[in-house]
Amino acid sequence: MAFSEQELLALVASIFQSDSSDGVLVGIGDDAAVVRGSNQQVITTDVAVEDVHFSKRWSNAFDIGRKITAANIADVLAMGATPTYLVIALTLVGDEGLERVAELARGIKDEADKTGARVVGGDIARGSAISIAITAIGSVERAITRSGAHVGDGIYISSLTGWSAAGLHMLKHDIEPVHAVHTMALNEFRAPTLDYGIDFSRASALTDTSDALLISAQSIADASGVNLHIETSSIEGAYEFKELSLLAQSLGVDVYEWILGGGEDHVFLATGIDLPGIRIGEVRKGTGVSGLEMKKAPHMWRHFQ
Amino acid sequence: MAFSEQELLALVASIFQSDSSDGVLVGIGDDAAVVRGSNQQVITTDVAVEDVHFSKRWSNAFDIGRKITAANIADVLAMGATPTYLVIALTLVGDEGLERVAELARGIKDEADKTGARVVGGDIARGSAISIAITAIGSVERAITRSGAHVGDGIYISSLTGWSAAGLHMLKHDIEPVHAVHTMALNEFRAPTLDYGIDFSRASALTDTSDALLISAQSIADASGVNLHIETSSIEGAYEFKELSLLAQSLGVDVYEWILGGGEDHVFLATGIDLPGIRIGEVRKGTGVSGLEMKKAPHMWRHFQ
Repeated sequence: MAFSEQELLALVASIFQSDSSDGVLVGIGDDAAVVRGSNQQVITTDVAVEDVHFSKRWSNAFDIGRKITAANIADVLAMGATPTYLVIALTLVGDEGLERVAELARGIKDEADKTGARVVGGDIARGSAISIAITAIGSVERAITRSGAHVGDGIYISSLTGWSAAGLHMLKHDIEPVHAVHTMALNEFRAPTLDYGIDFSRASALTDTSDALLISAQSIADASGVNLHIETSSIEGAYEFKELSLLAQSLGVDVYEWILGGGEDHVFLATGIDLPGIRIGEVRKGTGVSGLEMKKAPHMWRHFQ
Repeated sequence: MAFSEQELLALVASIFQSDSSDGVLVGIGDDAAVVRGSNQQVITTDVAVEDVHFSKRWSNAFDIGRKITAANIADVLAMGATPTYLVIALTLVGDEGLERVAELARGIKDEADKTGARVVGGDIARGSAISIAITAIGSVERAITRSGAHVGDGIYISSLTGWSAAGLHMLKHDIEPVHAVHTMALNEFRAPTLDYGIDFSRASALTDTSDALLISAQSIADASGVNLHIETSSIEGAYEFKELSLLAQSLGVDVYEWILGGGEDHVFLATGIDLPGIRIGEVRKGTGVSGLEMKKAPHMWRHFQ
């Protein structure tokens, strides 16, 4: 490495500085962090591997930091919880410059700051590939699982899915951004915007759509023992559908490949009565997902298959 | 992979099964686990990379699972806390058999069970190297940091350090186990025994010695603003010193290389008054570590340097 472990730790600790006003009683530097707890908590962990989940060819270190933190925080928010603390396990290959690692840390902090979550610890190791495992803790009064959907509930998404997949398509096919819609798709892939503004606290079931909207809908249907009937016409009335659809058309892609099978958007999917967001269908008796008039079966975005 | 993600997740979930009697309100399978919290908590994360922190040439999957879990739990115990929950972020290369991954999970569970900690979630990704990042949460009434050592305190270790380094030396030099002492060293390297039995709850400062006894002592001296005076003669009076010393002699190694610089033992180092364990010196005014009559400077075991 082009820097000592001490230099790196000092830099990272300065970026992630926190104190007791954040509930952090002992921060980075001891055997473990000590934090104020809460009565009921959520815990989730996610690992992202270079050239599988992110690529320096496509994103800078700051955006990579933001993206993986957003993915992790999305799982906390998808339980109806408030993110409180993060710890980061970072594997480096050894040729990274100190500034690049600092940018990664700043990206993590930037995204964590949006929810008030604090990075309270971590570990750095050397390996043959860069990987970043983040664990997030959140506090919750009433956890919203995938299993609470009731027959008669509406089905809602916090915003239109598919933008991240559109950005990935552009990068894979070396399509230069010309229009604003191109830039929007690229930004959404590089560092997805979490729908922090949406209030799904009254949802009966809730999850994020990072694996793909269709997979998320299926998981709520399975966990709740109901059918999720999603109407293509409702999706087509959604804000931004027209832009995404025209972009897909111009690139020769079925837009539903992106919307239903894209993944990595971190849009939230909820069921319930009179929720905000875009209503895309209703919960019925039965099983699985129905109602979609798919021209093509979307290629599912999954790591293993 | 020789198995589907579904098969793997189902198997791992069955190994790590837990319920509300463990404080686990929502276990593996939703966006995040939901657990009962506590007023004050510790959080720590550790990442272990194949062929850096462990090797399948030297350890089976069960022992690797135990070893990395012990390393993580040691950090929780080193804060005077009780481990409660673990989450695991596992990166696989794709050629692992299902049974090997299951053995790894069983090793993790075996070690976690010793403290009553429950694995409540995880993530599995594919990468170019196997790595395992574990995050551990613990509950604590009074956290014991490295910064509480007082002048006049005694310095204690929970047991003799160096056995893990002795085992590593044997493996590196292809030394076959002939005597019981050889097997002891090998076992201690493959899956270190944490000193769960020791009661250091009255310690003024506490840490584990996974990086090496000398580094741990230095970290308490730095954090507490004191001098740690360690007497070689006290170490020489320790239980097991004679066996370890004879083993070192037979292999042509300075035993203090192992004891002071070895690392990976997960022995605990404490300061305080009338503590259990092996008293190896006392806390004095000043800085750093003194008193050791080293014949050689131990080669420090560190990932980066």
